[in-house]
Amino acid sequence: KFKHGIKDIKEFLEKLANRGKVDPLSSNFAQYLDENDKLKYLRYEFSIPKSRDIVNDSVEAKSPEEECMYFCGNSLGLMPKRARELISQELDVWASSGVVGHFKHKHNRPWVSIDDTLVEKMADIVGAKPIEIAIMNTLTSNLHLLMASFYTPNIKKTRKKILIEPMAFPSDLYAIESQIKFHGLDPAKELIKVTPPQGESVVPLNTILEIIEKEGHTISIVLFSGIHYYTGQFFKLKKITQAAQKKGCIVGFDLSHAVGNVVLKLHKWGVDFAAWCSYKYLNSGPGGIAGIFLHEKHATNFNRPRLTGWWGSERKSRFKMDQQFKPIPGASGYQLSNPSVLNVVSLLASLEIFSRTSMVHLRAKSILLTGYLEYLLDKQLNGLGFKIITPRDPHQRGCQLSLKFFEHSVQEKVSKELMSYGAVVDERSPDTIRVAPNPMYNNFSEVFRFVSALKVIIGDIGVKS
Amino acid sequence: KFKHGIKDIKEFLEKLANRGKVDPLSSNFAQYLDENDKLKYLRYEFSIPKSRDIVNDSVEAKSPEEECMYFCGNSLGLMPKRARELISQELDVWASSGVVGHFKHKHNRPWVSIDDTLVEKMADIVGAKPIEIAIMNTLTSNLHLLMASFYTPNIKKTRKKILIEPMAFPSDLYAIESQIKFHGLDPAKELIKVTPPQGESVVPLNTILEIIEKEGHTISIVLFSGIHYYTGQFFKLKKITQAAQKKGCIVGFDLSHAVGNVVLKLHKWGVDFAAWCSYKYLNSGPGGIAGIFLHEKHATNFNRPRLTGWWGSERKSRFKMDQQFKPIPGASGYQLSNPSVLNVVSLLASLEIFSRTSMVHLRAKSILLTGYLEYLLDKQLNGLGFKIITPRDPHQRGCQLSLKFFEHSVQEKVSKELMSYGAVVDERSPDTIRVAPNPMYNNFSEVFRFVSALKVIIGDIGVKS
Ligand SMILES: Cc1ncc(COP(=O)(O)O)c(C=O)c1O
Ligand SMILES: Cc1ncc(COP(=O)(O)O)c(C=O)c1O
Repeated sequence: KFKHGIKDIKEFLEKLANRGKVDPLSSNFAQYLDENDKLKYLRYEFSIPKSRDIVNDSVEAKSPEEECMYFCGNSLGLMPKRARELISQELDVWASSGVVGHFKHKHNRPWVSIDDTLVEKMADIVGAKPIEIAIMNTLTSNLHLLMASFYTPNIKKTRKKILIEPMAFPSDLYAIESQIKFHGLDPAKELIKVTPPQGESVVPLNTILEIIEKEGHTISIVLFSGIHYYTGQFFKLKKITQAAQKKGCIVGFDLSHAVGNVVLKLHKWGVDFAAWCSYKYLNSGPGGIAGIFLHEKHATNFNRPRLTGWWGSERKSRFKMDQQFKPIPGASGYQLSNPSVLNVVSLLASLEIFSRTSMVHLRAKSILLTGYLEYLLDKQLNGLGFKIITPRDPHQRGCQLSLKFFEHSVQEKVSKELMSYGAVVDERSPDTIRVAPNPMYNNFSEVFRFVSALKVIIGDIGVKS
Repeated sequence: KFKHGIKDIKEFLEKLANRGKVDPLSSNFAQYLDENDKLKYLRYEFSIPKSRDIVNDSVEAKSPEEECMYFCGNSLGLMPKRARELISQELDVWASSGVVGHFKHKHNRPWVSIDDTLVEKMADIVGAKPIEIAIMNTLTSNLHLLMASFYTPNIKKTRKKILIEPMAFPSDLYAIESQIKFHGLDPAKELIKVTPPQGESVVPLNTILEIIEKEGHTISIVLFSGIHYYTGQFFKLKKITQAAQKKGCIVGFDLSHAVGNVVLKLHKWGVDFAAWCSYKYLNSGPGGIAGIFLHEKHATNFNRPRLTGWWGSERKSRFKMDQQFKPIPGASGYQLSNPSVLNVVSLLASLEIFSRTSMVHLRAKSILLTGYLEYLLDKQLNGLGFKIITPRDPHQRGCQLSLKFFEHSVQEKVSKELMSYGAVVDERSPDTIRVAPNPMYNNFSEVFRFVSALKVIIGDIGVKS
């Protein structure tokens, strides 16, 4: 019913309200949407914090025992209840059999190949083949490993540049700059940052395509995030990939804010490589294990530079001492070390939930849920005190809306007050609040409560239009 | 009473037996040693597997309900019981407060700085200052990051070589070779492997010092393990460091088999850098988080190449978007990503146990425990079927003894039979069994039982001298 292809959500929502014979601005409509939500059962797979536990010391919760409105899955996803069980099982195996757990495991996850339990599920989520996926390390480490292979200005001397989005996430920026310096080059010269039009945060596709068209022949890698962490813009990954590859560039994406949030088709789009963390929409817990994608077309290209370790070498050889690195074809060949078992099963708990639905279904709900948030914000607040800087087109964003406040002091007060109402959102200095209703565990009634609270708060502060 | 400085263990053990008025070959002596072991209480902090759970499908345990003889802490340390509790606490925080746990944490371990709980404890264990320690990533990743900084054949063009031990651990070898190739150089030319004298596995210090003396001026890094994973040789780290640095080389160590096993004084010895995993003698669980050491003398040298990430940047700046990498002085400046909370507390559970004793005390017991194993093997088996290839000098080994069998088929049978007796040891192809009594949780009676079983097994196989 909730179509992935929705373009005009406002219209669609009003049609739904009409069909349900409810006022689209009433709490009845939220309830109606919840009742008709086919994914609502997923919420019960997660531990939802209570309001009393999410306030800081200077804030008092108005309804301490109530479940909080957790709109912060863009920063840290909630805990799947099953994580506790799976982790406990691994501790049992460790406690009861020590090192033997590498080969014999009462829950059929021998540690020596435990990441196998994740690969297919992860491949489904990002639209990849299993050979294209590895679960390993942390995001920033993986970006380095992939750049070590794909950023080769010493070999292709006419391609030294890296093209990135505006205001890239600090860690990505640091990683990329350090890679450029590592090759003895100067980031001030070799790093091209796309700039949005004056006064805007979002970059039109054309701006990106024009730079690629103009500079593409000097660019080694186009390295964007899938969804911008700050603005929430979902870049046109397929078009960027095609345009950049046409100019001979390599295309890589940091999908931290896109994976588990939007439908991705990495294989089909021909993306060269990608990396992501798993603690946001993939709910694997703080500092969870990360993932990489390496397109099949690179699976058996062993000529690129590559930083290697035993876990990337053919499994049969790992415990032998024949001392010859034989890369596993595909993404797994980039693995370095034996993975953390606790982190693997913590992620598994979440991916098992993803397996009970699909990204298409989640995305359909997400478009409606975030659209509903946008609808209420527009109708109830109409720009009072802030502006939504995330694209209005649902196909150019994921679940997150970024509200940019006109005054820093207002944003600060609002953040604090929202907390007292039990809302968990993400403040980003200087003046932005990111709100990310997650189709996995958020519902429409929460969105309704959130906007109602925000309206009261902004009214109380006395913001004038 | 058990002195760290013991030279002749055989003599010392016989003196002890004499003092206790027991036959040094009797089980009474083992009991006597256990009774006088001041660290025996530590065993109760660990989950000791039962024999029934450590056999594989083709082996039947003789005493299934008995605690196994776990001599495999060189591969995976046993689980500290407290790990379960600490992990459960972190899951509680995640479940009850989601992202808020980064800043507010009911057990006073806010995730944003959770690795702080480990640094001092880890520093104590390796003889370092806190500024020299970071807890991060995995071992092989860390070796890459450190080599990226310290292996600079493109800058120091007369120093392109890396000197390593014979039969280095596969992952280290792969990592080092790939670093050499990464700089467009040929491992066949630039990698120097020390060779032990014909027919030997252990390398005399002099052989190492001679190569350093001869080739040192062309060597970029001397990169050894602290204790050799296969032979159990504890290299003379201080002397190697001094000799190599005198020739202008950088000195780095992989301390996977040394950390938590022997007394290390990394700061005092002036070692440049080191890296280690934590799942062996540090008991952090499969794939646990790793550690690095960066000598204080490099703490504020920000001119070296370095692959960077936000977690290595000044803490105040992490969540700001000022987009300037400001390295934290010291080892922490090499961190890339936010660390896995589960892995951090799993390691914490173990380091808390280390804090209740000291490496000097553990090492004193270890020398005696492994010496006792050696004594019994010599007296009871006297080379029947195998040879101890680990150095006989306790100061040139840690807790592990490697038994090299003369016949592969004998080793195979012995391994299988040992399992049925409830012994967990590590088989390394082609013909070696590694036995590592851990002073943390093993006792003298287990060693006695182990050698008694081995004697029966070898007798039954009918090995002739
Ligand atoms: C000496 C040594 N180096 C490297 C490794 C590889 O470790 P990791 O998989 O943690 O990178 C090991 C693992 O046993 C090891 O013993
Ligand atoms: C877009 C993006 N890139 C990189 C990172 C850094 O991740 P890590 O600490 O896992 O390397 C984050 C973390 O939030 C992120 O959102």
